[in-house]
Amino acid sequence: MSGNGRALALSMGDPAGIGPDLALWAWSHRVRLDLPAFFVIGDMQMLAERAALLGLDVALTETAPEAAAARFATALPVVPVPLAAPARPGAPDPANASAIIEAIRLAVEFTLGGRARAVVTNPIAKSVLYASGFGFPGHTEYLAHLAGEAAGTPNEPPLPVMLLAGPELRVAPVTIHIPLSTVPKVLTTEAIVETGRIMARDLISRFGLAAPRIAVSGLNPHAGEDGALGSEDAAIVAPAVAALRAEGIDAFGPLPADTMFHAEARAGYDAAICMYHDQALIPAKTLGFHDSVNATLGLPFIRTSPDHGTAFALAGKGEARADSLVAALKLADRMAQTEAASRASAA
Amino acid sequence: MSGNGRALALSMGDPAGIGPDLALWAWSHRVRLDLPAFFVIGDMQMLAERAALLGLDVALTETAPEAAAARFATALPVVPVPLAAPARPGAPDPANASAIIEAIRLAVEFTLGGRARAVVTNPIAKSVLYASGFGFPGHTEYLAHLAGEAAGTPNEPPLPVMLLAGPELRVAPVTIHIPLSTVPKVLTTEAIVETGRIMARDLISRFGLAAPRIAVSGLNPHAGEDGALGSEDAAIVAPAVAALRAEGIDAFGPLPADTMFHAEARAGYDAAICMYHDQALIPAKTLGFHDSVNATLGLPFIRTSPDHGTAFALAGKGEARADSLVAALKLADRMAQTEAASRASAA
Repeated sequence: MSGNGRALALSMGDPAGIGPDLALWAWSHRVRLDLPAFFVIGDMQMLAERAALLGLDVALTETAPEAAAARFATALPVVPVPLAAPARPGAPDPANASAIIEAIRLAVEFTLGGRARAVVTNPIAKSVLYASGFGFPGHTEYLAHLAGEAAGTPNEPPLPVMLLAGPELRVAPVTIHIPLSTVPKVLTTEAIVETGRIMARDLISRFGLAAPRIAVSGLNPHAGEDGALGSEDAAIVAPAVAALRAEGIDAFGPLPADTMFHAEARAGYDAAICMYHDQALIPAKTLGFHDSVNATLGLPFIRTSPDHGTAFALAGKGEARADSLVAALKLADRMAQTEAASRASAA
Repeated sequence: MSGNGRALALSMGDPAGIGPDLALWAWSHRVRLDLPAFFVIGDMQMLAERAALLGLDVALTETAPEAAAARFATALPVVPVPLAAPARPGAPDPANASAIIEAIRLAVEFTLGGRARAVVTNPIAKSVLYASGFGFPGHTEYLAHLAGEAAGTPNEPPLPVMLLAGPELRVAPVTIHIPLSTVPKVLTTEAIVETGRIMARDLISRFGLAAPRIAVSGLNPHAGEDGALGSEDAAIVAPAVAALRAEGIDAFGPLPADTMFHAEARAGYDAAICMYHDQALIPAKTLGFHDSVNATLGLPFIRTSPDHGTAFALAGKGEARADSLVAALKLADRMAQTEAASRASAA
């Protein structure tokens, strides 16, 4: 059995969204999809009710993380985190925010403690969590916070890099969930360099690429067209590319973003770095809407997630597609195998 | 013969670039590609030399615009505009800027005068033209200027809308060749409304769509996420969509840009409006790098062009792909036919 008998830790996400639906559907199709073993961290009763609502015949088994893999063949293993209020599909309830957050926290704790192989997270709705005092812009920042706490450096969390990984493209934005007008103000050479370093390191250790080629976009149209369309490409991006190259990383750019993502261009690199959210996520979701995965690089544990949201309107209806969760589970499994092999060969 | 015996007017573009190569190649394959008749506005000797360099057996015939269509079957018709200096492939020469600009001007003059069916432009390099005092950001703005002059309103040129049209997507940016940091400062509700009006009008009269559906992107990630990621989506974009709808135009949005361009999303609209260059051109060139066409809407004549640049490094080598020029010629032909039919039925 891969992973020394450990399973992937899957957080339930917002129980009013499609996360539970996808987890139940994925387990039901585990054999056909050749899924790696996983356990859900969430509420047993909620999962049982959702399975009944969806007409899925899913046996649930309460388990400790380390026992999950052995039980996965015959039942969906669940590490219980009880909800405060009954979950109603499509109707998120801030009363359940604490349980939603606790499921994520436990997934990290289990993985850092060697009791799970990697963290896979189901979608959350930030507005629901904010109502309970959740102080992070999103999943990714909370995971970085947990990593910082676990390392004893709570005030210096690691920089998380959000990688969109699909069959046709891997791409990471340097800035993420901020207004577009803020991007040129906060973009720094240091942030691009750090993103490139983390990407290169994880592409080697967790994706098995010996010498990853990294394409870096410009910020402005035509990468600034020699300064005619903006100064940041020459002033901020180009020095970052030079710094990465000086460290032996095969980065190149700044490239005009609009001509970076067709098939011939993509053949020239293993992953791309973009300067802001839409510059990275437009090509990622145009090319791989259903099967792209969000992988967080730069953390002391492997974490993947579907690249979609809670889709409250689809919860409990059996209409949500599990492609992205399935891809997230498989990618986490491959990354964990690659990292284990990498560590073994380094030892 | 379509177009009442008139041909499309094709400007030579920068003669040091691939424009002449593409024109010669296209004419050579006119039968197989079922191309509409066109004539080149450019230097006869340059075209003859380029054909020889490329090993293309192209007969050239000097012609007046109105005689071009009848000659197209047996020779490539040329309306001569002599160069000031010999054209060397790959080595642009500002001495030829005047001739490059004159070819564009003539294409517009011929089309507005009813001597040609539509304008198709080969790529130019703005830096080469700037050296000779060319005062426009690009082709599109120069064409709008010419339209304003022809209408006797040189100080009030029409607003040109740059539509990228490919087999899978039609998309227009509201702002175009400006630094990204400038976009949030200059984006207005009025500009979005005017872009939507022009797009709707041209999609009806020149693309033959009875009731075009127009998707409008937000400016910020997730279209601002209820204001958490920026205010412009609610303050600037949403009122523009409402104003367009009040005029009976089937516009909708603001939509998160990253989830607008996969296949299922594209099935919901006929054309999209984006707020800035890369937001529009990333999906356009990711989905249709070789066969997308740049069509300028809102002008009193039809104009298309390939959506690539001069590619100086490929000129004279026979390696440039003519897909986009071929698509531009065919689209101009279809648009002219549709417009003529629309006018005939309105008369």
